[in-house]
Amino acid sequence: MENERLRKQIDFILEADKEKNILRRTHLSGNGRRENDAEHAWHMAIMIYLLKEYANEEFDMAKAMLMALIHDIVEIDAGDTYAFDSKGMETKEVREAQAAKRLFGMLPEDQGEELKSLFEEYEANETSEARFVRVMDNFQPLLLNNSNNGRDWIEHGIGKSQVMQRHISTKLGSKVIWECSEEIIEDHVRRGNLKDE
Amino acid sequence: MENERLRKQIDFILEADKEKNILRRTHLSGNGRRENDAEHAWHMAIMIYLLKEYANEEFDMAKAMLMALIHDIVEIDAGDTYAFDSKGMETKEVREAQAAKRLFGMLPEDQGEELKSLFEEYEANETSEARFVRVMDNFQPLLLNNSNNGRDWIEHGIGKSQVMQRHISTKLGSKVIWECSEEIIEDHVRRGNLKDE
Repeated sequence: MENERLRKQIDFILEADKEKNILRRTHLSGNGRRENDAEHAWHMAIMIYLLKEYANEEFDMAKAMLMALIHDIVEIDAGDTYAFDSKGMETKEVREAQAAKRLFGMLPEDQGEELKSLFEEYEANETSEARFVRVMDNFQPLLLNNSNNGRDWIEHGIGKSQVMQRHISTKLGSKVIWECSEEIIEDHVRRGNLKDE
Repeated sequence: MENERLRKQIDFILEADKEKNILRRTHLSGNGRRENDAEHAWHMAIMIYLLKEYANEEFDMAKAMLMALIHDIVEIDAGDTYAFDSKGMETKEVREAQAAKRLFGMLPEDQGEELKSLFEEYEANETSEARFVRVMDNFQPLLLNNSNNGRDWIEHGIGKSQVMQRHISTKLGSKVIWECSEEIIEDHVRRGNLKDE
């Protein structure tokens, strides 16, 4: 191909295809198979549109959707780190920074920089877009897990305090979604699906 | 849950989860498993951002991404119709219109109408957003199939004229992506992966 810029973009598009093989701990509704990162990101991006009225702050829709779509691309190299794996969490930042450098480095420089910045903005969680995308990153697996009667928590012996710790960031992005999440979490504590230490 | 509006939105979000189980004929790169609709839509939405400079006309990024993300939701009820299945294509419109009514009807009325209109706008292919989303709907499987040495065409005995017919719509949305697509298609004809009737 003569167009060097388009060739780089296509190479990245094919590399991104590998995200469809990165499995999460979450299972699809109906006690389905394990979900992969690409499906999770797709679901989050739709939810950003559907639930936008509940964001604490105004945000840019295209920016937030793109942020959701690419937020897990680094896991192609770094793998998925389970939200409740404290050992994996210690090395996550370094592993993902290396992955971001390699993966976004495949793109033409302007686009690579733009996506790398967007990924870093998500991680830093300091803008309205990042905060609302993070709400979806928490709420999407919560809804699936709730629909499967808390199966993912039960399998991994998760406790209420761990889940509450994670969902602190939900409150920052959406008061309404936080209240809904809390209701779901408390219900699973009552049913014994989440350990109440 | 007391919030009736949020309950409807959550019901739709969980219903949409089923799109992850709708399999396409396309295989993932690296001769992987069959791709599902949700992954396909995720890939398309990222491509809309990455390849936006090649669109024939200006378009609204958030609108086009959302259109891509939801364009196959009707297949939860209507199933995937292979692009080269002429019998299936005859009934596709009616099946998908019924599905759109039921699925988008689960949402609060304003959002249901908005998504149904967006889906219909995509199908009508008369706006700049619809035309560019369609480019991605054609180009994304072409890239995967190309990376797998034309496997999907070979398995289904597809001919050059069928592929060219489908890609007419690529030209309408992007001259550059059309030229790149044509180059790929001609290469597979030469290699005997596409029948040249």
